[in-house]
Amino acid sequence: MQRKSFEDMTCSLALCLEQVGEWWSLLILRDALHGLTRFDEFERSLGISTNSLARRLKALTESGLLERRQYQDRPPRYEYLLTERGRDLQPAIESLRAWGAKHGPARTAPVRLVNRETGLVADPELIDKRSGQPINLDTFVYVAGPDAHEAKLSRMPREPRPAE
Amino acid sequence: MQRKSFEDMTCSLALCLEQVGEWWSLLILRDALHGLTRFDEFERSLGISTNSLARRLKALTESGLLERRQYQDRPPRYEYLLTERGRDLQPAIESLRAWGAKHGPARTAPVRLVNRETGLVADPELIDKRSGQPINLDTFVYVAGPDAHEAKLSRMPREPRPAE
Repeated sequence: MQRKSFEDMTCSLALCLEQVGEWWSLLILRDALHGLTRFDEFERSLGISTNSLARRLKALTESGLLERRQYQDRPPRYEYLLTERGRDLQPAIESLRAWGAKHGPARTAPVRLVNRETGLVADPELIDKRSGQPINLDTFVYVAGPDAHEAKLSRMPREPRPAE
Repeated sequence: MQRKSFEDMTCSLALCLEQVGEWWSLLILRDALHGLTRFDEFERSLGISTNSLARRLKALTESGLLERRQYQDRPPRYEYLLTERGRDLQPAIESLRAWGAKHGPARTAPVRLVNRETGLVADPELIDKRSGQPINLDTFVYVAGPDAHEAKLSRMPREPRPAE
């Protein structure tokens, strides 16, 4: 299967995909958010081969999304902890999950994200911090800056002068 | 490269990954959000082979994320438009992009998402609609429901009784 590197692309989305590496890796990060830390826990939860899991944990560690830490001396054993970079993927993971919950078959989620204080299940929505408005194409529009690809310049409005 | 189907997994994240299909496909959806619709536009913007692009557009159409529509008779030509399912991936795409912008090298984004009214660049944040609080592990916690995988039951708090 073709697997081109996204590294030379200037888009931040491409950069993120490059760092995470593979679709599957998001499921490992999800499990890490759920509190799993050890190889055998990830292995049982994901049902993937030892080799695949080892390769992906190594890649996630090299990308700085997980940190490998020894938790036992004899025999040496390691656990994998989310770094700040890794934890910062929670909004993306929850946004993808919300999409699946909305567009997938109705069912009870095996794991839920609840408010520590109220115990109510989170209902995630992406907003713009500045205006407080939900991100959608009614309220927001993509504009091309001077570095935009020529394929886009013809289809998108140009960047307006920044408001004072 | 190993590519296991996520379809049998009960997580909504896995379902979403299954529907989108491949990492690359998110870049196609990004371009569709940016207003591109035609094969040659996607081809120039993404710089991938005709075959790969055709295969991915077909998969995205079959998953109902894009809709293929004829816009010219002779010769017949088609364009690819985002469906509601596809547009609903915008929060996930913007969340991944925000991660890349935060953790990647500092630079000007080639394309920006701006508020139609104010012209100010969006600053995306995932919040919980119910409480208005940002989604993070300080304020929210993952809890295991009765269907959670046994690998998780030992590491996660159990689902509390719902608040009245």
